[in-house]
Amino acid sequence: MAQVYKEIKPSMRTLMGPGPSDVDPRVLKAMATPLVGHLDPDFLAIMDASMDMLRRLFQTQNNLTIPISGTGSAGMEAALCNVIEEGDEVLVCVNGVFGQRMSDIVGRCRGKLTVVEADWGKIIPPERVRSALEKSQPRVVAIVHAETSTGVLQPLEEIGQMVRERDALFLVDTVTSLAGAPVKVDEWNIDICYSGTQKCLSCPPGLSPITFNDRAMDVIRDRKEKVQSWYLDMSMIERYWGSERVYHHTAPISMIYAFHEALRVIHEEGLKNRFQRHSKNSAALAAGLKAMGMKLLAQEGYRAPMLTTVGIPEGITDLNVRKKLLSDYLIELGGGLGDFKGTAWRVGLMGYSCTKRNVLCLLNALESILAEEGFSVERGVGVDAANQAFNG
Amino acid sequence: MAQVYKEIKPSMRTLMGPGPSDVDPRVLKAMATPLVGHLDPDFLAIMDASMDMLRRLFQTQNNLTIPISGTGSAGMEAALCNVIEEGDEVLVCVNGVFGQRMSDIVGRCRGKLTVVEADWGKIIPPERVRSALEKSQPRVVAIVHAETSTGVLQPLEEIGQMVRERDALFLVDTVTSLAGAPVKVDEWNIDICYSGTQKCLSCPPGLSPITFNDRAMDVIRDRKEKVQSWYLDMSMIERYWGSERVYHHTAPISMIYAFHEALRVIHEEGLKNRFQRHSKNSAALAAGLKAMGMKLLAQEGYRAPMLTTVGIPEGITDLNVRKKLLSDYLIELGGGLGDFKGTAWRVGLMGYSCTKRNVLCLLNALESILAEEGFSVERGVGVDAANQAFNG
Repeated sequence: MAQVYKEIKPSMRTLMGPGPSDVDPRVLKAMATPLVGHLDPDFLAIMDASMDMLRRLFQTQNNLTIPISGTGSAGMEAALCNVIEEGDEVLVCVNGVFGQRMSDIVGRCRGKLTVVEADWGKIIPPERVRSALEKSQPRVVAIVHAETSTGVLQPLEEIGQMVRERDALFLVDTVTSLAGAPVKVDEWNIDICYSGTQKCLSCPPGLSPITFNDRAMDVIRDRKEKVQSWYLDMSMIERYWGSERVYHHTAPISMIYAFHEALRVIHEEGLKNRFQRHSKNSAALAAGLKAMGMKLLAQEGYRAPMLTTVGIPEGITDLNVRKKLLSDYLIELGGGLGDFKGTAWRVGLMGYSCTKRNVLCLLNALESILAEEGFSVERGVGVDAANQAFNG
Repeated sequence: MAQVYKEIKPSMRTLMGPGPSDVDPRVLKAMATPLVGHLDPDFLAIMDASMDMLRRLFQTQNNLTIPISGTGSAGMEAALCNVIEEGDEVLVCVNGVFGQRMSDIVGRCRGKLTVVEADWGKIIPPERVRSALEKSQPRVVAIVHAETSTGVLQPLEEIGQMVRERDALFLVDTVTSLAGAPVKVDEWNIDICYSGTQKCLSCPPGLSPITFNDRAMDVIRDRKEKVQSWYLDMSMIERYWGSERVYHHTAPISMIYAFHEALRVIHEEGLKNRFQRHSKNSAALAAGLKAMGMKLLAQEGYRAPMLTTVGIPEGITDLNVRKKLLSDYLIELGGGLGDFKGTAWRVGLMGYSCTKRNVLCLLNALESILAEEGFSVERGVGVDAANQAFNG
């Protein structure tokens, strides 16, 4: 046995795909802390501090602001299945894979789905939501803030206002945006908001930060039937994270240690500084890629600062490039997803991975590999343009 | 910020409750390994090795043998919701909290529930299942192997055989038993089996090992409707863990590092040695507790070797004792759950926590605290009896 299954020794990587991102060594270290029980007074204090810090990150006063014990997709499911009952009208905005995934889940919750669509790489125009709202009275309107499949950052303020006016619940996916760009839950009239830990929080995957306001909790309390998921039933989870401390399921202790430390790192840097860092690095990356003659796929003016989608140049084989990047430079990029499969790369600059070093190394590496693969590019133009952006 | 939210420094603990158990430092260290991506070739190799080792632990040849990205309760929900469709008959055996939880989930899956009951602390008599099977034709028969609320270890072989003869699916909860007592999935005709990582595997909570055989997978493939949970839909999860490697959700990388190391630790010790260690330590604990005049609540002959339920002596206040144990001896015991709330303690001897040292320390500590609390006990009898059991 000991001979067959060796200790893990994964290769060194720089994670510049759509997540997971590189994890701060402080967070890795926190995760190695010996465990206490999930009802231990010491653990309850860690839960409370984590909720406080998470509220500041979501910019909300919502009481129920916690990490769900599953990855971002569990958060998506928790957000939807708690407020949808059979036959409820749900309006989902779809311009990428994660809007599609929300639509799929609405069906599984037996909701009545209406879709507002936009092309991949484009935002959902607010007027399209308005006209859909004129034709229906949905219980929930769901949208993705930063579409991880396209790199588009969706403006939310105007839509949030019209959803509130129609007295529907505004449900927002901030899996990729949270901690890399402002997410103002209260100001934007968001009723339910979820995220993931493995993107701009730079915590390992496994938790989904989520927040419900009182409007959302009232809908849950007024349900006719139980939530179809026991594991994600917020009316029970609330009693563990709240003052009652009623056991529901055993909390993932070590992941919450990591989460607590990741939140500390975020608030030590400060939200404003952190968002500026993401903007600056992604602007430099974009400048470099454009100077190299590459095409950015997200609509100008609405590019997510933590995830850049790039068109793969004609004649270039996706996997050849990504394999060389991984083997020679130890850099992971993401491939295209859904409609963009095989035609796009997804470059993440998230949390701990969002550094000037990573921007410059990637541009140099790409230039060199693309030249080998026969793509005509003047050597050095990418890095020069990025440096200009950094200094400008 | 930095002043307000301090680095976590949880107290030293010896975890002797119903889980989490103490985690082997090797596992903690594995968890601090820097991350690679969830589609990285290095990670895929770690997944494959983990599946191999998990098959050996479940004593199964089942292909789909993986950790679900959630705690044991997520495994329970995954096991049930994948094979139940609206109106399906499901027979659930209930003699504690976790049988009740399965019943609750069956309702949420819109299954037609029949319950076979036994008193808390007693096993489900196989003949009771037989007579229920004569009156109905369930799609699924569900039972708990080691009931964490009562400490009963349920014999499964006879029931497994009768369920197979009736062509139903046999679904077994081994959250508490796996890696502390034999779980023979194939030999016992178990079709679906799930567990948790935080008990006898001594890995942090956050994953649920699960296995489905071909009979179960056929039922899933023949479903009329989609599984109601997107996150736990095994037909999609199978494609990520299988040779296709189709992205479903981002795997909890660090938890799987830990899981891999926990499995290595288990197989290095060897299943036979590990099960013997659990039997021996729990027998000594039981001898000690009985010598002290304490009452064990699980039926003689069917006591789970990893979890002992003890009646709280009359006149003794539950919380006084557990608080002193925690503050003075740093030992966590579990309180009673459900029907046993306030009247029982739950003592875990699981995985890394299952040691002679812990048995002796707990008996000494209990003796001393109970004496302070006014329970008349001859000093030293507990430890003496335990030592006799160890040496006998």
